[in-house]
Amino acid sequence: MIEYYDISGCYILRPWAMSIWEVMQTFFDAEIKKMKIKNCYFPLFVSSGVLQKEKDHIEGFAPEVAWVTKSGESELEMPIAIRPTSETVMYPYFSKWIRGHRDLPLRLNQWCNVVRWEFSNPTPFIRSREFLWQEGHTAFATKEEADTEVLDILELYRRIYEEFLAVPVIKGKKSEHEKFAGGLYTTTVEAFVPNTGRGVQGATSHCLGQNFAKMFEINFENEKGEKAMVWQNSWAYTTRTIGVMIMVHGDDKGLVLPPKVASVQVIVIPVPYKDADMQGIFDACADTVKSLNEAGIRAEADFRDNYSPGWKYSNWEMKGVPLRIEIGPKDFANKQVRVVRRDNASKSDIPMADLVEKVKDMLNNIQQSLFDIATQKRDACIQVVHTWEEFAEALGQKKMILAPWCDEEEVEKDVKARTKGDMGAAKSLCTPFEQPELPEGTLCFASGKPAKKWTYWGRSY
Amino acid sequence: MIEYYDISGCYILRPWAMSIWEVMQTFFDAEIKKMKIKNCYFPLFVSSGVLQKEKDHIEGFAPEVAWVTKSGESELEMPIAIRPTSETVMYPYFSKWIRGHRDLPLRLNQWCNVVRWEFSNPTPFIRSREFLWQEGHTAFATKEEADTEVLDILELYRRIYEEFLAVPVIKGKKSEHEKFAGGLYTTTVEAFVPNTGRGVQGATSHCLGQNFAKMFEINFENEKGEKAMVWQNSWAYTTRTIGVMIMVHGDDKGLVLPPKVASVQVIVIPVPYKDADMQGIFDACADTVKSLNEAGIRAEADFRDNYSPGWKYSNWEMKGVPLRIEIGPKDFANKQVRVVRRDNASKSDIPMADLVEKVKDMLNNIQQSLFDIATQKRDACIQVVHTWEEFAEALGQKKMILAPWCDEEEVEKDVKARTKGDMGAAKSLCTPFEQPELPEGTLCFASGKPAKKWTYWGRSY
Repeated sequence: MIEYYDISGCYILRPWAMSIWEVMQTFFDAEIKKMKIKNCYFPLFVSSGVLQKEKDHIEGFAPEVAWVTKSGESELEMPIAIRPTSETVMYPYFSKWIRGHRDLPLRLNQWCNVVRWEFSNPTPFIRSREFLWQEGHTAFATKEEADTEVLDILELYRRIYEEFLAVPVIKGKKSEHEKFAGGLYTTTVEAFVPNTGRGVQGATSHCLGQNFAKMFEINFENEKGEKAMVWQNSWAYTTRTIGVMIMVHGDDKGLVLPPKVASVQVIVIPVPYKDADMQGIFDACADTVKSLNEAGIRAEADFRDNYSPGWKYSNWEMKGVPLRIEIGPKDFANKQVRVVRRDNASKSDIPMADLVEKVKDMLNNIQQSLFDIATQKRDACIQVVHTWEEFAEALGQKKMILAPWCDEEEVEKDVKARTKGDMGAAKSLCTPFEQPELPEGTLCFASGKPAKKWTYWGRSY
Repeated sequence: MIEYYDISGCYILRPWAMSIWEVMQTFFDAEIKKMKIKNCYFPLFVSSGVLQKEKDHIEGFAPEVAWVTKSGESELEMPIAIRPTSETVMYPYFSKWIRGHRDLPLRLNQWCNVVRWEFSNPTPFIRSREFLWQEGHTAFATKEEADTEVLDILELYRRIYEEFLAVPVIKGKKSEHEKFAGGLYTTTVEAFVPNTGRGVQGATSHCLGQNFAKMFEINFENEKGEKAMVWQNSWAYTTRTIGVMIMVHGDDKGLVLPPKVASVQVIVIPVPYKDADMQGIFDACADTVKSLNEAGIRAEADFRDNYSPGWKYSNWEMKGVPLRIEIGPKDFANKQVRVVRRDNASKSDIPMADLVEKVKDMLNNIQQSLFDIATQKRDACIQVVHTWEEFAEALGQKKMILAPWCDEEEVEKDVKARTKGDMGAAKSLCTPFEQPELPEGTLCFASGKPAKKWTYWGRSY
């Protein structure tokens, strides 16, 4: 999937990973085009004056900004920043382009790389200094339209995780402490990795309110001829999605790829045996690949002659290919093939005649099964707590903790301070949109004040 | 198409330009996937040690490299370069991944941004400090395979220019002086802009030979068990393609977009007249868009109520939309529409019943006609010369000059020196693969030595 690179925190996305990114990109790009969102491309660079225009925003990003100060042998007159995100790159032009209500909504997206020179542990896919993402930036005449889009996009992010990557996520809102720097509110899809007991912010859809509009003077003349300020959103998902998928489904043998994103869904392996008719078997393998391909299934055969079937089995298991088809002399004679699932190792013999239909069914079945099992495992990690003692215990057990909370920023800071340690502090993950009942008089697990909502907490990537 | 950006030499690609890029990208990406070339993504950054490994290569790029020296408030231990191209980024890993002949060919591509901090006149699309491109990097066991791929890719570049952008190009080989820094030979598709009298390198497909393989130790064990060195290619086309298209087809009224790449191929405009049945006309416009869309034609209606039809006509002409459909009360009554071509302003009345078929034909016709006219104009600029006097005169007339040449690097340098001036020096554009006959005894236009080949010369972007 990746190769480590000689600059720390940077990774090479090999074709096996890139093809997963492309499947998601094809889906998401088509969906946003249906919503009349248009692609564009803004520069990688941002001048320091513009970058610093929104105070909270720059405070959030300043420590991670990479600066270009030289070209060739010459010092630049002014250092130039590499975009950590493009709000400040784009919004001066939003201000220029938006004049009247007929220029709204303005809905743009770009697929690009961004750089955040983080010093905390770099981790492939999850936390890298450069990553790929899409970033949507939109402006509306009314808050209602902006609010609606925030949720429409969040639903697409849920679909990427649940329908493509087979990873269950919880939709919710970030706390004031965890929201996007400079924004009004942040919605998120939160995933959880049972093996490590950590939450992971899957993708975020922000309503920026009018904060950036104020700083960048993004005004328009409304239908009554009055000057008004736009309402803005920004939203993004990154190559981190791939990392979440790897951690959620992977096992001791390696990757487990959901069929929908696997660049090879079926690997066909010839199994030689003594003086069997190998040419017949090879032909059967090639024919199998051909009929699967014609049915739109991504299948390949592994004809390498210098590896044993057993070595090939392990190799493709490690690479996570959802289905393996073995064809040996007996299968060939009986006009059947042996099919082995990567996710649960179950084996079945299938008549060649039924193969395409059966394989389709099995791939759908694997996709659903991966999601169901991941959901069961995730749900088994959710622990409802009411008191600090229960919270601390659940945190020790690496749970995803659902707790009643007073929703005060100082209390969240306090929780962080009290849970600091080698493993990293706990923080709020999200306040789920689907709220369990909160009986009158329920108290905050951390402050003992009256609770306002149920919120997920835990350690996080 | 673009917006100027507050950092000199950087430009914003607006949706109108980006959609053209996406059409070409969809075509090219599908074609290289058929060739079993796989997409990947390597980092934006390259360490200075690796960048400098191939001597000629770094000499070619060093003056334009942008350096990151700071992150947040901290100085980096070592400055890090931003890729001007990715040979040195990728090839240390080619060396790691390629062990035996079974690992070959290795054929990778990436879609990304690159940075060349040029100080000569930045020009939108044509010469910008950051641009988008694809870069293919491949390694083969034999020179023959590499040679074949160089030409296969060059043919795709020709198709992008001629079939999509309707811009005629000449396939040929770059001179030693103009070839890719560090490569063995460079092939190119060269376009010409009659209005400015300048050639423009359209896209290049390089055979790198074994120069990089030597420096980066990219070796493999061949079928005989001997150690051998790979043969490599790299090839790229950039957003410059869009700039070439704009310059070749544009006129006094603005852009002229070839139908194949236009994000809006047909604009439908209602034409109000006194107390006509406007609702009927609006419905007819919407129906027209609907039937065209259903036939796969990219059509939109312009229902803005605050602009006159005349203003809309000019506006969409400026934006280059290939066909305009006007629907007024008379058209509506006669069940017909008025269709106006952007490229030659010809008008025709078409019965609603035939519309889809007629529009399809007209779009094909416009695509072909743009190419034919551009070819005629380009051909009219080609001037065959034999002597320095003829050469100098043709250069003064801003021609694309075809001249017999001795193919010596010193002579090319001399031509450059002798033609220096406000307009920029002349240089060799390419030696066309299709060579006119070169009679025995023909002398070089510049040196008077025996000529070896016909080569195109001119001023260039």
